[in-house]
Amino acid sequence: MEKRRVYLKLTSIPEAQAQILSFPSPLTGEKVPLELACGRVLAEPAIAKVSSPAFHGAAMDGIAVQAAQTFGASQSRPKKLLLGSQAFWVNTGAPLPFETDAVIMAEKVFPADPAVDGGTAVSVEEAAFPWQHVRKIGEDLVATEPILPQGTTIGPYELGALAAAGVLEPLVFRRPRVVFIPTGSEMAPLGSLTPEALRAGQKLPEFNSLVIKALIERAGGEATIWPIVPDDPQLITAALRKATAGSPDSPDAFDLIIINAGSSAGSRDYTAGIFQELGELIFHGIQVMPGKPTALGRVNGKPALGLPGYPVSAVTSFELLAQVLLKAWQGQTPPPRPKLPVRLFQPLASRPGLEERVRVILGRVGEEVVAAPLPRGAGTVSSLAKAHGIISIPAAREGLSLKDPVEAELIKDARAIDDSILIIGSHDNSLAILDSLLREKNPRYSLASAHVGSLGGLRALAAGLCHLAGSHLLGPDGVYNQRAIQENLAGQSVSLIRLADREQGLLVKAGNPLNITGLADLARPEVTFVNRQKGSGTRVLLDWKLAELGLEPRSLNGYDDEEYTHMSVAASVAGGRAEAGLGVKAAALALGLDFLPVGVEEYDLVILDKFLQDPRIEALLSVIRGPLFRSRLRELGGYGVERTGELIWSFAG
Amino acid sequence: MEKRRVYLKLTSIPEAQAQILSFPSPLTGEKVPLELACGRVLAEPAIAKVSSPAFHGAAMDGIAVQAAQTFGASQSRPKKLLLGSQAFWVNTGAPLPFETDAVIMAEKVFPADPAVDGGTAVSVEEAAFPWQHVRKIGEDLVATEPILPQGTTIGPYELGALAAAGVLEPLVFRRPRVVFIPTGSEMAPLGSLTPEALRAGQKLPEFNSLVIKALIERAGGEATIWPIVPDDPQLITAALRKATAGSPDSPDAFDLIIINAGSSAGSRDYTAGIFQELGELIFHGIQVMPGKPTALGRVNGKPALGLPGYPVSAVTSFELLAQVLLKAWQGQTPPPRPKLPVRLFQPLASRPGLEERVRVILGRVGEEVVAAPLPRGAGTVSSLAKAHGIISIPAAREGLSLKDPVEAELIKDARAIDDSILIIGSHDNSLAILDSLLREKNPRYSLASAHVGSLGGLRALAAGLCHLAGSHLLGPDGVYNQRAIQENLAGQSVSLIRLADREQGLLVKAGNPLNITGLADLARPEVTFVNRQKGSGTRVLLDWKLAELGLEPRSLNGYDDEEYTHMSVAASVAGGRAEAGLGVKAAALALGLDFLPVGVEEYDLVILDKFLQDPRIEALLSVIRGPLFRSRLRELGGYGVERTGELIWSFAG
Repeated sequence: MEKRRVYLKLTSIPEAQAQILSFPSPLTGEKVPLELACGRVLAEPAIAKVSSPAFHGAAMDGIAVQAAQTFGASQSRPKKLLLGSQAFWVNTGAPLPFETDAVIMAEKVFPADPAVDGGTAVSVEEAAFPWQHVRKIGEDLVATEPILPQGTTIGPYELGALAAAGVLEPLVFRRPRVVFIPTGSEMAPLGSLTPEALRAGQKLPEFNSLVIKALIERAGGEATIWPIVPDDPQLITAALRKATAGSPDSPDAFDLIIINAGSSAGSRDYTAGIFQELGELIFHGIQVMPGKPTALGRVNGKPALGLPGYPVSAVTSFELLAQVLLKAWQGQTPPPRPKLPVRLFQPLASRPGLEERVRVILGRVGEEVVAAPLPRGAGTVSSLAKAHGIISIPAAREGLSLKDPVEAELIKDARAIDDSILIIGSHDNSLAILDSLLREKNPRYSLASAHVGSLGGLRALAAGLCHLAGSHLLGPDGVYNQRAIQENLAGQSVSLIRLADREQGLLVKAGNPLNITGLADLARPEVTFVNRQKGSGTRVLLDWKLAELGLEPRSLNGYDDEEYTHMSVAASVAGGRAEAGLGVKAAALALGLDFLPVGVEEYDLVILDKFLQDPRIEALLSVIRGPLFRSRLRELGGYGVERTGELIWSFAG
Repeated sequence: MEKRRVYLKLTSIPEAQAQILSFPSPLTGEKVPLELACGRVLAEPAIAKVSSPAFHGAAMDGIAVQAAQTFGASQSRPKKLLLGSQAFWVNTGAPLPFETDAVIMAEKVFPADPAVDGGTAVSVEEAAFPWQHVRKIGEDLVATEPILPQGTTIGPYELGALAAAGVLEPLVFRRPRVVFIPTGSEMAPLGSLTPEALRAGQKLPEFNSLVIKALIERAGGEATIWPIVPDDPQLITAALRKATAGSPDSPDAFDLIIINAGSSAGSRDYTAGIFQELGELIFHGIQVMPGKPTALGRVNGKPALGLPGYPVSAVTSFELLAQVLLKAWQGQTPPPRPKLPVRLFQPLASRPGLEERVRVILGRVGEEVVAAPLPRGAGTVSSLAKAHGIISIPAAREGLSLKDPVEAELIKDARAIDDSILIIGSHDNSLAILDSLLREKNPRYSLASAHVGSLGGLRALAAGLCHLAGSHLLGPDGVYNQRAIQENLAGQSVSLIRLADREQGLLVKAGNPLNITGLADLARPEVTFVNRQKGSGTRVLLDWKLAELGLEPRSLNGYDDEEYTHMSVAASVAGGRAEAGLGVKAAALALGLDFLPVGVEEYDLVILDKFLQDPRIEALLSVIRGPLFRSRLRELGGYGVERTGELIWSFAG
């Protein structure tokens, strides 16, 4: 029996942040030339060294004059001014010649009589007042004036202000130096594994270092990535000793040490113990999910942070703790994410005692912003990139009901949410293609989809939770979708628009080793099946076909083993978890499976009529009806596109 | 008479954008390794090459089993499983051994009787259901699934998704190559001018290239800066020929040419003409202020953009046109700035026919966000860095009144506005020091100040337009501020808190060449004076002192020449525009002027009592009352800090 660790006490997020923030800043200042200063942070207030402008200058193109010499000029009694002594041509920005104090714009300057003056004089027809059209010295900046406070991040605009103020080598914080040490005997460098090795699973590609390095740099730090250290306490101890060596002033020493994985409560969790051995373990385990198995230690006086191994956990812990520390050392707080009240698409359960952070996609449907949760696993790294926002379920709660007032922190721009079309319902690969084409044509818009099956989509539509639903529900009358719409969308007006005809069939292993010939073979005892969830069109089709064959659903081995998308059904067959599943041809082609056609079904979009004039939906329909979408579907295979984009049926319930 | 150009027709912003966007994208795709991909933009949808996970893996630490072998287990009838054949210890993330399909968490696994089994077996007390605690193959990503659409900017999260999907060399757009050509015989490279040369004004430091380079890079481009080209049409033509040479595919050719300055309607405006000569002039002059003198041409098929010379104009034009183009070429729209309804602090006049973009500082006062305009000159580069937002006055309007509904585009984070303290009133250098110290202690908070003189500040306070006012108004009773508060803040409760005692005096040229000995000498005919604006405490003090001396204000030469800050009064004297001005000692010290004390005055903060409990104001008061603020004021000189932070008077009107 191996030794297991348990978390004696989980530290709250504010307490964990206070602990890590108690490490004083090791950052000294350094002078950098402006050319290299963009993105750096001022370590002291910037004080103007010169005034801007540094002299009285012309604010217009025209002539510089002494205002007093123009007094009394009028249209009937113009004043003549001698060029070179009383009037001087100046361009915008040029310094005023000595003793002049006003500029008369070029349009109001007239040639004096050339016959008399030989072009050496001009004439003006109105008086100038002193300092008209003059940019006075120091109008923008005055020497010695503090212009930018300490802690300012130098961006393009700040470069301009510093340059104008003659601060050509601002004092900025040196960048915090962070070392990231991946650990784990099962990890291999990204790119070193063949697809076969990946599928065998003996080694996993290490890419947290890639993500965290980018986050460190975004927080103003300098990241050093060390090679993967195997799960050997001695090797990890040696790495940690080396990483924490040196004083903050030595240029090769690190300010913050991040050690990745090995910090879960698993058997290979050495980090916390090593912190304790080499220095002090400040906490182990924080009240957040994902991110719980985070440890903080003090080794050689320096902060050493143990991040969990799963990508979403590692990112969450990094952002809550390391990013906050790096920013604080530079006199800043991390820019808070804007918050938005949202309506939950479905209740969210959670474990009390942990603040659960759920990534969601968001879309503005009518007046409300609807939040649909993404898969919550700490390993679902795609959810990091897909999420529009995060909903936090407080540690004291067991979840959020549909009635709870809920706010989402925005990860993407608020405008992206206003511009996103929310489709909820059945999953199909063509939706990702549609999203990509939509963005190519209209960079502002995007299609965000949540997959809950056809029936779930119609119900979401009825509840005003999405703009449209993808559906392929075969009715008892043999007609697709219409009966289900009548049953679920009473009182609504919707349009049923064909996205594509899809081939559905049995997905079986390449070469079909069990020689499955059709649905009837699913009842054979050695055939394991993977099903789709209740309410999905594919399941309805299966049940319809089984009934035709007179087969009892429960006679299928695996009828209750459910997946939520075609692709995951295909992956289950490809991975050997099941021998057969029902799905679209595209999924079989994608994973090199054999495909036994069962029939062609109609995959339609159900759109609330009130959204048909919405520019987002108009843009979407125009893409669906364009030639590019059809040709991409044809390339994918398994689709009929003859009626793609056609209005199949209008329903006013 | 030199030749002058006039703008025949100004192009509207949408029309100008449509014109520049008609240049098709020259950007081909290139593959970059993920390590170098952060910040790049996908040139095609990224398609998963592998599934993630690529195998069935343990989602918990525990034992992997065949679920069926545990059926029937209970506390009273535990099942014994042989290690190595029926049960396998697995760590989170490890692949499931062949034919296992469930994981039982470690906490629920018990040692079997060691006497009997010799540690080779374990015991479980409840049945596992199939696939429990298993991360199934493809749970996150399925091979061949489109995971990120074209046009996605690769950030830290996207790096993770691409790595997990095995997309190790994504196809990204090559960066658009932009050349920036500064022109102007009067320009010199930044840093090449001595302070004396700067003050003489014969040459100006060129720093637009620094600002625009950073903006180009932020828009995803590669910037090349060429040396300054003098105002010689032949040289500019040669530069433009060279810059537009080459086809988009040649690696040393540019995609966008930006030529700076020379595009105003001044005599040295060669750019538009040269566009016409070498190719086509598409427009010259756009309906925006600042930014009007912008020109777009097509030379060798490429877009050539002439940006105005003043920094704020150059930035405005760049952002409206070049940035939009660079983003569009990468399949993106520039992220729109969030908008916020605001209350104007003062009406804004503007010229019809031009959309005027006014930079403003913002602060949340009670329920409203108040906008105070920054100086509008196109040369006020500091306004770029100081502004929280921009208010646009539509081209059709002559300005905005206090009653107009107004929105500000936010440049700074919305949170920065909630966290900013708005002080309106008399200007003092100590306010910039206070802001810097406030941010050092509380990185979230900032002090934003608008300068309208003491009386203006009290009136703004009365109108609910700011949190506090800085005031030094000498009453007819010889007491500072109290009479003015009674007269202007009836019905309000305010606290009068001493910021500092200030020495006020005459600022005269170093060495006092005119031998000015006091205020009485201001009436000497050869002495020119620069005054402060009406309502400023300094002007009240002057009038009081002049009355004491029996001097008629109008007898002062320059009494009507007004400046709005101490520093600009000092700069006027330093620059030779006036011989004397009244101001604080700090301003004299700052610019090396002589200072003839006229008296000590009380500079106080007037705070609405209802804001005294506001955490921002509490933080501010704590900085004012701390030792650091006093010591910084002492360093500056000219301040008495004995009563700094003291509550002088409470007024309940």
